[in-house]
Amino acid sequence: MTAVKIRQARTSDCAVILRFIRELAEYEKALPEAVATESDLQAALFGSNPNAFALICTIDEAPVGFALYFFNFSTWMGKNGLFLEDLYVSPEYRGSGAGKVLLKHLAKIAVEEQCGRFEWNVLDWNTPAIDFYESFGAEPLHEWVGYRLTGDALERFARG
Amino acid sequence: MTAVKIRQARTSDCAVILRFIRELAEYEKALPEAVATESDLQAALFGSNPNAFALICTIDEAPVGFALYFFNFSTWMGKNGLFLEDLYVSPEYRGSGAGKVLLKHLAKIAVEEQCGRFEWNVLDWNTPAIDFYESFGAEPLHEWVGYRLTGDALERFARG
Repeated sequence: MTAVKIRQARTSDCAVILRFIRELAEYEKALPEAVATESDLQAALFGSNPNAFALICTIDEAPVGFALYFFNFSTWMGKNGLFLEDLYVSPEYRGSGAGKVLLKHLAKIAVEEQCGRFEWNVLDWNTPAIDFYESFGAEPLHEWVGYRLTGDALERFARG
Repeated sequence: MTAVKIRQARTSDCAVILRFIRELAEYEKALPEAVATESDLQAALFGSNPNAFALICTIDEAPVGFALYFFNFSTWMGKNGLFLEDLYVSPEYRGSGAGKVLLKHLAKIAVEEQCGRFEWNVLDWNTPAIDFYESFGAEPLHEWVGYRLTGDALERFARG
């Protein structure tokens, strides 16, 4: 049986993390928006006082997937939460249980760090992912809609 | 004309922030879920290495609203973003422009901190807020659904 293992990312993982980010963006039909560089990841994950963190999933020592997360804050609970920004497993390793092992590892971090919640977003057409998330008790937040201000609109609003 | 001013929150603001959080939760029909205490806020906003921050909006020196935010991370942009968790203005001061002044101040922080995005969530029935957000160029992320694992389901999944 192949051993799925999880470890915190190291600086030498930035190239493979960037490859995974781009593969995931392609699956999410958003590759042109994935403009991050390896040095962006170095700075964000391993610079001074980082607020984003990554896990690497390996099978027989080879990286097969990753998770990138940060801590958010719930004013209702008065506690931090763990927010999973990206979860990805290479297509050839799907069905190996790697995704679930990554998620369980993140849930353990959330509990250890006394987070009140473990949260993430999913594209509404990604039914395999949705079915998987609901199989272990995660609940959809259908009533909430995200809003985003970016690019020129953000600059204009900040200046005006 | 009354002067709307914005300043970073101080430790002595935690009581008024908690009152605003509870008033907002009541408006959002979720008061029983707002279990945060004043000491939770003290620890989160003013403890060592905080990852949540608050702004206070005053009119004639009296607090009339607040914003609570943290920094998230976009793997596509390879940059931090500013996430607005709560924005609230007391009912008697609505229409004073206080909400817009708070949002503009947050947009300025986002630009200064080189964030690629300024984001927040809104309840889908809160049309006055939605109309306001869209009036200055914010865009809805209808394709994304939030998922949450919390309470017993989180503990169970982490342990299993």
